[in-house]
Amino acid sequence: MAHRLPFHEGGCKNIHGHSYQMTVEVAGEPDANGMVLDYFDLVSIVEPFIKEIDHAFLCDNSDKLIRDFLKGTSLKVVFVDFPTTAENIAQWFFERLADNFMPIKNISGLRIIVSETERTTAEVSGEIRVSPVDTRLFAHQSHQTS
Amino acid sequence: MAHRLPFHEGGCKNIHGHSYQMTVEVAGEPDANGMVLDYFDLVSIVEPFIKEIDHAFLCDNSDKLIRDFLKGTSLKVVFVDFPTTAENIAQWFFERLADNFMPIKNISGLRIIVSETERTTAEVSGEIRVSPVDTRLFAHQSHQTS
Amino acid sequence: MAHRLPFHEGGCKNIHGHSYQMTVEVAGEPDANGMVLDYFDLVSIVEPFIKEIDHAFLCDNSDKLIRDFLKGTSLKVVFVDFPTTAENIAQWFFERLADNFMPIKNISGLRIIVSETERTTAEVSGEIRVSPVDTRLFAHQSHQTS
Repeated sequence: MAHRLPFHEGGCKNIHGHSYQMTVEVAGEPDANGMVLDYFDLVSIVEPFIKEIDHAFLCDNSDKLIRDFLKGTSLKVVFVDFPTTAENIAQWFFERLADNFMPIKNISGLRIIVSETERTTAEVSGEIRVSPVDTRLFAHQSHQTS
Repeated sequence: MAHRLPFHEGGCKNIHGHSYQMTVEVAGEPDANGMVLDYFDLVSIVEPFIKEIDHAFLCDNSDKLIRDFLKGTSLKVVFVDFPTTAENIAQWFFERLADNFMPIKNISGLRIIVSETERTTAEVSGEIRVSPVDTRLFAHQSHQTS
Repeated sequence: MAHRLPFHEGGCKNIHGHSYQMTVEVAGEPDANGMVLDYFDLVSIVEPFIKEIDHAFLCDNSDKLIRDFLKGTSLKVVFVDFPTTAENIAQWFFERLADNFMPIKNISGLRIIVSETERTTAEVSGEIRVSPVDTRLFAHQSHQTS
């Protein structure tokens, strides 16, 4: 998926992309079969959201330069109303997936981890049956020494 | 380790196996040497549980088909009283390891992460000195886009 | 980075080293640009601490044997006042990085994960705007079966 951060003073203002990875974690009581959620069901819920953005440009509607260009093409684009940081992407998935997991009564919590690279990751987690004010954002990064 | 889920409507009802990975996390105050627990001691506590199930079939006692077959062979098998989902395996290790860590006074919490594959993982964590009602099950999965 | 644990009854009393990896996780509310903290800013805060210990011997001041030897050489050494376990190294980074993140008002929490190997890790996490008594130490280890 491609994106850019127009406000960024470093390289992130340029059009670039990542092989994003997302981890979806659901928390709750296991059912009679000993599953919080069958991995196959988890995939069926999450996959449409992945397909929507796969090989697309994730474009903040306030980014007039890219928005106007892409609207004149047939290139795949998904418009959103937020700067496309890893934190905001994780929050975006958290909110939409929380809606989708809500009907599954034994699921009470959700954690979304979005990695731009192996070393840069954002995480949003929270209960999905209470006020979203309890959600919490993390950004983390790995460092190596030898 | 091999297993199957007889109730499963997908491929998991067949006899299959995984190169399971488990992460054992102990929480607590470090001792005078600055260790929550010496990794060597952690290994000595956990290894017997690993050896018990390594290259075995983990068989739910209610799975009559496999149970009756394996009882007539000399093949390695471990019988348990639960469907052998990653969630239940993590819970099983949590309970038995909690008993083993209990005598170590500075350890207060335990987290067990069982991965069937790099992308499918179950997690149980909780305090080991309070009611097990506080434990909590997670199942998570990684998704990739490019 | 090299170290040893003089008190250790196993191999850790010998001079050895690790390709340590550290993950720094900051928690808080995202700013107007949708970032808890720009990864570039995170790097600029953390990198000096990495450079200080990269290819150095981390020497506990109570380790007279190594301390006296290294003081007579020009070899890179960093002296600390604690046994150089992964737990203590994580705590050391937690305290110093907490001081550095404190001026950034939207950051409320910090987690430091120090890995000696892919399988042995120590973790310290806590709020950085409350008493350090709330921090919590984890040590974890991965096990594999096949």
